[in-house]
Amino acid sequence: MSKNKKLVQEITSMDVDFAKWYTDVVKKADLIDYSSVRGCMIIKPYGYAIWELLQSQLDSKLKETGHKNVYMPMFIPESLLEKEKDHVEGFAPEVAWVTHGGQEKLTERLCVRPTSETLFCEHYANDIQSYRDLPRLYNQWCSVVRWEKTTRPFLRTLEFLWQEGHTAHATAEEAQEETLKILDIYSDFCENILAIPMIKGQKTDKEKFAGALRTYTIESLMHDGKALQSGTTHNFGDGFAKAFDIQYTDKENNLSYVHQTSWGVTTRLIGALIMVHGDDSGLIVPPKIAPTQLRIIPIAQHKEGVLEKADELKRQLSQIVRVDLDDSDKSPGWKFSECEMKGIPLRLEIGPKDIEKGQAVLVRRDTREKIFISLDEVNEKVLQTLEIIQKELLEKARIHRNAHTYEAKNLEQLKSILEETPGFIKGMWCGDRACEDKIKEETGATSRCIPFEGESIGDICVCCGKPADKLVIWAKAY
Amino acid sequence: MSKNKKLVQEITSMDVDFAKWYTDVVKKADLIDYSSVRGCMIIKPYGYAIWELLQSQLDSKLKETGHKNVYMPMFIPESLLEKEKDHVEGFAPEVAWVTHGGQEKLTERLCVRPTSETLFCEHYANDIQSYRDLPRLYNQWCSVVRWEKTTRPFLRTLEFLWQEGHTAHATAEEAQEETLKILDIYSDFCENILAIPMIKGQKTDKEKFAGALRTYTIESLMHDGKALQSGTTHNFGDGFAKAFDIQYTDKENNLSYVHQTSWGVTTRLIGALIMVHGDDSGLIVPPKIAPTQLRIIPIAQHKEGVLEKADELKRQLSQIVRVDLDDSDKSPGWKFSECEMKGIPLRLEIGPKDIEKGQAVLVRRDTREKIFISLDEVNEKVLQTLEIIQKELLEKARIHRNAHTYEAKNLEQLKSILEETPGFIKGMWCGDRACEDKIKEETGATSRCIPFEGESIGDICVCCGKPADKLVIWAKAY
Repeated sequence: MSKNKKLVQEITSMDVDFAKWYTDVVKKADLIDYSSVRGCMIIKPYGYAIWELLQSQLDSKLKETGHKNVYMPMFIPESLLEKEKDHVEGFAPEVAWVTHGGQEKLTERLCVRPTSETLFCEHYANDIQSYRDLPRLYNQWCSVVRWEKTTRPFLRTLEFLWQEGHTAHATAEEAQEETLKILDIYSDFCENILAIPMIKGQKTDKEKFAGALRTYTIESLMHDGKALQSGTTHNFGDGFAKAFDIQYTDKENNLSYVHQTSWGVTTRLIGALIMVHGDDSGLIVPPKIAPTQLRIIPIAQHKEGVLEKADELKRQLSQIVRVDLDDSDKSPGWKFSECEMKGIPLRLEIGPKDIEKGQAVLVRRDTREKIFISLDEVNEKVLQTLEIIQKELLEKARIHRNAHTYEAKNLEQLKSILEETPGFIKGMWCGDRACEDKIKEETGATSRCIPFEGESIGDICVCCGKPADKLVIWAKAY
Repeated sequence: MSKNKKLVQEITSMDVDFAKWYTDVVKKADLIDYSSVRGCMIIKPYGYAIWELLQSQLDSKLKETGHKNVYMPMFIPESLLEKEKDHVEGFAPEVAWVTHGGQEKLTERLCVRPTSETLFCEHYANDIQSYRDLPRLYNQWCSVVRWEKTTRPFLRTLEFLWQEGHTAHATAEEAQEETLKILDIYSDFCENILAIPMIKGQKTDKEKFAGALRTYTIESLMHDGKALQSGTTHNFGDGFAKAFDIQYTDKENNLSYVHQTSWGVTTRLIGALIMVHGDDSGLIVPPKIAPTQLRIIPIAQHKEGVLEKADELKRQLSQIVRVDLDDSDKSPGWKFSECEMKGIPLRLEIGPKDIEKGQAVLVRRDTREKIFISLDEVNEKVLQTLEIIQKELLEKARIHRNAHTYEAKNLEQLKSILEETPGFIKGMWCGDRACEDKIKEETGATSRCIPFEGESIGDICVCCGKPADKLVIWAKAY
């Protein structure tokens, strides 16, 4: 039991130091390791398996809605990056520059893509001629680089993995429809698969993407009351099309500019699931995204018949869930701890007495509830329990978020709420950038979004007191 | 029909100019497009769909054999790249260097990974302590960059997609076993999925990987008689382990160095399947790797009931194969040409008369054979025909390769064969690097491998005439 204790004690309690708890968990749960490359992480097998499950499930949704995957170069020539004015201003300060290839100095610097709008635009300008070529619904899974000063695993790294969708449409209406359709796909995915409730809304001009007409976002609330921007979609209008001259001939034989969108989610989502579901024993992974949904841990495995029965159950259950069996020579206590640290949603314990009685014990990771089941009904009970866990994790997260959503009428209220019980704070806003800046400066909170489901909670700005008709969600954010 | 003709005529005949035929096909079949980034290509949806099928099928094989996916940083600090002497000598001349991040000059240059041995070694040095940690069987899907002077789509590009496996083992025997096991997986995959027969063998010292003890390869023969190195596996012994200090405590509590391997295949394999199976009408994609295995083309689709029947067949067949339906307003002739250009293995034609008779026509892409089938047996016939195509493409490629495999006893013979009928040339070799250099210089051929199944065809070196006991496959290569 000493090893067991050690494993648990090595994690900082989340209430003592949430940031330290987070970095403890990503390491101890074997999600990542650090490398000698500043700000870049190594995603270990367990972390990468979560990413693969996320990727394959989201990819299916995107393909079902007509999107196709492509691969663009990872380099962008400086002159290409500069073609759209707002875009280059937003990204040039934070890119990595390749200046030498082999032994030679390049005549033009190349940046490592921070995002690929410019490459897609260049391609679309060549590739789109007629209305028959539209819409173009492309997506790319890749890594991108942004030269961040401070980094944290999954949440902010110099290099990160993501998908970036880039679409071109005949009309402004279709582009807007796409921008909102993808926001729905993201939101549904996060709720149904990651069990994280999202608030959908529009970004203010200050917070929108460099070069976008409108940016939409899904925002989630972490356990510590800070917000996490979890995915964004951008409607570019015809701004990029004009900068890159992407025109098509319509049915009446007129030349028109296309209307474009882009959208992405990243490995950040793994950070979100850690900070929404985890506890002081480690990770809690929702069943639908769990590389191992059920781990079988034999009790007194040296006794005759125990390992055989455990193995039989594993084979049986592998037909319906992602299951493994820990038959290592570690103590059951150590195995329980490891299973908890990794957030495996369900464990099944089986020992000689259980076998005698024709039963087994299921233990839920989230509630620690023990469920005695008959071996005849193991398949059914496992599936049922995983479903319940998935559902209750979402409910729990929603309850936590709602309990940490407040209203503020003025700057003083906003400030004191943030100091005492951080969370989402609803406050009216006049629409003036100066108020956003002042709130940021005085409270550290930013406008997360103007939520789609935004009731009015007053008629004056939380900051300046002038007339206001926009409800904004304010929060400190990752 | 004019459009139809145009589409076909735009391809150079492969016998007139094979290189031009190749670049025509990759463009016309919609596999790739060029970008403004020198030597980097855009992989379009059809090309990327082939890569995804390749990736998912090979990934399953690697996972079945215990390998796990991870993700390492894309950057390697210069000092890390330099840790293994042979390795840095091999790769430093052809890497892209990042010298600036954001506005600042970096204190140490970072190269964009040309391959990730050094990163895996650094990680293993931290992560491996005891024999319990072994073997480590990691794999990574990513893109890498090598600063090539001349490039060609899929075959040699500055950036390319690949998988790179990196493993660490307790003993030299296990590392050797892994190196050969993966070579078998590669070879079986290429034969069974890509329908390309491979010769397995060992590279000479001159041709082996920078830092490897032994390199193994699978070599295939293209339609024009040139060889393509299609995949390699490397046994590093404990060379990297010593350079990076990767030691573990064995069961007797002694410190030992690990033994390592690495191995990879790339988007080159798409180049191989183009050049092995294609013809003057375009691509021929083997069914197991074809994004669309069957395309339904309605005849006289404006007639009542035709589109309905075509759509019904599509729904029915989508349960068992990857199928689509071309119901666009193009002419059937144009549709046939496009279907051929993209190498879709099987097309199904159905018109009003067919419906009357309760039949349809299957047309094989490879042989152009027309098969009249009853609509009652369509599922069965489609599956059967796809299986036959898959099998016969491999046989055809094997016959072509065998017909272009020669023997040479001396340099003159080697030279004249290469000039008249290029292919694989068997020739004995004394083992002297000078002979390899001379053959390269005088004939342009390189040693492809010392094949595992290498019968002796003489006892003197094809170059110097001195005693020789190694059979080598010589060829000009991509």
